[in-house]
Amino acid sequence: MSALRPVSAAEIESLALGAWILGTGGGGSPYTGLLNMKKLYRRGLVVSLLDPAGLADEDLVAVVSNMGAPLVGLERLPDPASIHRAVRMMEEYLGRRFRAVMSVEIGGGNAIQPFMAAALLDVPVVDADAMGRAFPEAQMTSFAIHDLPMFPLTLADVRDNAVIVARAASWKWMERLSRRACVEVGSIAATCKAPRTGREVKECGILHTVTKAIRLGEAVLAARRAHRDPVEAVIEAEGGRRLFRGKVRDVSRRTTEGFLRGRATLDGLDDCRGHEFEVAFQNEFAVGWLDGAPRVMTPDLICVLDSVSGEAVGTELLRYGQRVTVVALPAPPVLLTPKGLEHVGPRAFGYDLDFRSVFA
Amino acid sequence: MSALRPVSAAEIESLALGAWILGTGGGGSPYTGLLNMKKLYRRGLVVSLLDPAGLADEDLVAVVSNMGAPLVGLERLPDPASIHRAVRMMEEYLGRRFRAVMSVEIGGGNAIQPFMAAALLDVPVVDADAMGRAFPEAQMTSFAIHDLPMFPLTLADVRDNAVIVARAASWKWMERLSRRACVEVGSIAATCKAPRTGREVKECGILHTVTKAIRLGEAVLAARRAHRDPVEAVIEAEGGRRLFRGKVRDVSRRTTEGFLRGRATLDGLDDCRGHEFEVAFQNEFAVGWLDGAPRVMTPDLICVLDSVSGEAVGTELLRYGQRVTVVALPAPPVLLTPKGLEHVGPRAFGYDLDFRSVFA
Repeated sequence: MSALRPVSAAEIESLALGAWILGTGGGGSPYTGLLNMKKLYRRGLVVSLLDPAGLADEDLVAVVSNMGAPLVGLERLPDPASIHRAVRMMEEYLGRRFRAVMSVEIGGGNAIQPFMAAALLDVPVVDADAMGRAFPEAQMTSFAIHDLPMFPLTLADVRDNAVIVARAASWKWMERLSRRACVEVGSIAATCKAPRTGREVKECGILHTVTKAIRLGEAVLAARRAHRDPVEAVIEAEGGRRLFRGKVRDVSRRTTEGFLRGRATLDGLDDCRGHEFEVAFQNEFAVGWLDGAPRVMTPDLICVLDSVSGEAVGTELLRYGQRVTVVALPAPPVLLTPKGLEHVGPRAFGYDLDFRSVFA
Repeated sequence: MSALRPVSAAEIESLALGAWILGTGGGGSPYTGLLNMKKLYRRGLVVSLLDPAGLADEDLVAVVSNMGAPLVGLERLPDPASIHRAVRMMEEYLGRRFRAVMSVEIGGGNAIQPFMAAALLDVPVVDADAMGRAFPEAQMTSFAIHDLPMFPLTLADVRDNAVIVARAASWKWMERLSRRACVEVGSIAATCKAPRTGREVKECGILHTVTKAIRLGEAVLAARRAHRDPVEAVIEAEGGRRLFRGKVRDVSRRTTEGFLRGRATLDGLDDCRGHEFEVAFQNEFAVGWLDGAPRVMTPDLICVLDSVSGEAVGTELLRYGQRVTVVALPAPPVLLTPKGLEHVGPRAFGYDLDFRSVFA
């Protein structure tokens, strides 16, 4: 069996749906990315998916993302040209060509981002990412957890600005320097992260997450077609757990320091009537409290889904009156190691909580 | 006559003194740069000064500066290693070697900065700069006034952080992007600005300003030795004008957005008794008011000198009780053109004033 297979337009639709769920509120709405891909596919382009096993150890892989505050992405739409420029700039800087491209996070629009780049670069997308979900900061990746080098990084905006973080003293410094540049160009920018070798991807990536997101999207669509509960379909497909069903009562949200931060409160409905659920986010949902007590926390995936359609609700789209179900999905094992929790546990987000998994 | 001549240790002392005056309060204290140079000279190093006429059109010149808020430079001292790294990084990025190095501004410590770089790089310093004084922002140079390209720029800090601004949509964008990186690493960083060809330096640089600063410093030293008034010596050497003599009554100063901003008020002494002079600064002195009316404004050089020694007083060192004389010196002609005033006139600093020169 070949390591390379074409991805259909229908699969990209499923990917958008599934990745939006895995994005745990972040990664940016995949909608405009999907429109971009439809346009490219109508021109006859087809992007291929490459199994990581098909990478040679010395191959070079571009790791891309649309960085910034998701709310800004609703006004400044992602486009293939920006991410293409960021990747080409990296190739010029390195003096080497990329064999393939992958997403830093299989969440929301950032799952589509490598497809936009791949279409213009004529290379395949690797079936992997570095989070198995979405996270807001640079050091919150499996590559950082494995202590791989953090630089260089290239960043391009929609004007003609381009920044290279050539060296960073640490992953946190990479986050700080790239975030500042991102904020300055408007809190959204196309980025090409530190390049990875095929070997690094195979050993330190989170593998087959593109396929996983496609399958998850397909499960939701199948449930909708069969008039079954799409939220249940998500839970079944991923071995998740339903935590709360309710109605959004209050949202506070601010775009700050290049992030979208805030909180939302849900009033219980149905079997949750009389209870309250609060969820805090920094781009992605980080911690959820049931009646004031911590109920779920990062890195467990906290997904807020439309109770009827099973569609994910991004942190930038939460609003009063939405009927939503909060679901937890299991995190990739590397995030649950002690080193992993240092990078992405609740304390990494400023919450003085010992991590306890919903699934423990 | 050769275009290249060695600069003696005594001349570097004079340079520090003269450039501190031409810095109009900014450019950073030259003291630690001078100590660095003394150390390098004691090891037997001698830096050469290159007349711009000695540059071939196609030679490549590194344009360096220690960027940031002068106050921070009193704690995080400039060192030759950082500027050396910024220049080497530029050479690697370009894939070319520099023929020589020059300062973006002949003000304060930034007049010494190219000497530190040159000592480690074993290239000469060009007898020129791009301001003929000091200014706080990237677009405030003769190169920007001549619309030369503004990128790339390399920036290095004392940790192991390094940023390349590979492209910028305008000079203002270059300022914004590089300033943000500078602020993030602590509001001071070694930078190598957009490289210049020999032809660009000869046509668009402000020429022979290193020699001018050395001569100015020598004039002050000669006056001190002869027990003449060093402030008068500055005025004579540069065709300047004495504006006010007084005592510092009040200083408000804040380090913000990568700059040192503030105001100082002087009470008149001697023939100025009964009058008040106020001076506002953004790293450099920008506007001075006599009894509330604008008396002097950028780009005229506003120099605040110790009334006894003739030593320049940097904006980071102004303090209550200092006896100072405010002197205006003429600006390089390119700054006085309509295009020049757009870049460095009072409105470029946020003052709604039509430029009127003290020397008009």
